[in-house]
Amino acid sequence: MTANDLRAVERYLHEHIPLTAHMQVGVDRVDDDGVRLLAPLSPNINHRQTAFGGSAASLATLACWTLIHFRLQRLSFASGIVVRRSTMEYDTPIDSDFAAFCPSPDTDTWSRFTDALTQHDKGRITLTAEVLCHDISTARFQGEFVALRHSG
Amino acid sequence: MTANDLRAVERYLHEHIPLTAHMQVGVDRVDDDGVRLLAPLSPNINHRQTAFGGSAASLATLACWTLIHFRLQRLSFASGIVVRRSTMEYDTPIDSDFAAFCPSPDTDTWSRFTDALTQHDKGRITLTAEVLCHDISTARFQGEFVALRHSG
Repeated sequence: MTANDLRAVERYLHEHIPLTAHMQVGVDRVDDDGVRLLAPLSPNINHRQTAFGGSAASLATLACWTLIHFRLQRLSFASGIVVRRSTMEYDTPIDSDFAAFCPSPDTDTWSRFTDALTQHDKGRITLTAEVLCHDISTARFQGEFVALRHSG
Repeated sequence: MTANDLRAVERYLHEHIPLTAHMQVGVDRVDDDGVRLLAPLSPNINHRQTAFGGSAASLATLACWTLIHFRLQRLSFASGIVVRRSTMEYDTPIDSDFAAFCPSPDTDTWSRFTDALTQHDKGRITLTAEVLCHDISTARFQGEFVALRHSG
């Protein structure tokens, strides 16, 4: 995506999920390798001067959601995505600006997901994301997402 | 807690975790039964006009954290609490204002936690919370929290 496209994704998130504007979520990359979102520490800080766990989990969830959302736009029909369950493991405190990277799933996993969505109007996919600070992994996210094809 | 005490807890959250002010987190009850936090839909809305999953997970995390934080204040030493891992299961969309209720753990579970913290400067406890909308459970949270005794 071009820088302009990345800003458009950012605007989409800020407008449709207003908490992401308060978190100052930035979109760093959306490409075939995956989706990388950024968040500064300051608006996401907690009482320990590190990132609030809810912010880290939110950023990871958003990275995965964004990957699915923009990839599904290549299909010829509209669909909606929800998170069904998720797990976060927090390894070390996040003491600076942080990022969440959701790597693209392998081709088979993605095909199974879109085939189910196309044929049965419902697809299910599990994605992972790493939360990074100083380019070191500080937390790991795994989420199961469900996409439903919109009627009409 | 009195209404004034609940407002003080609310101020503490809003001041120390600024995202909770943007989420408009309210403190409804903090007592022997547990902790119940509230959040209006509007600042926590997503592109589907339901609550953003990250907001629901954040509110549940905060309910558990608040329960531990205020109960540990009864001890004679300072401690800090972090979430180590958490799981959220989202059952139904949250289409209105919502709440997160963390019930107090049983006496044995709490005692094991505070005994470990007192004797070994570190305690670990797993708590659950329900996210409710229209008084119906819409999501379930489970989190493992670690408390560390502050030196000095």
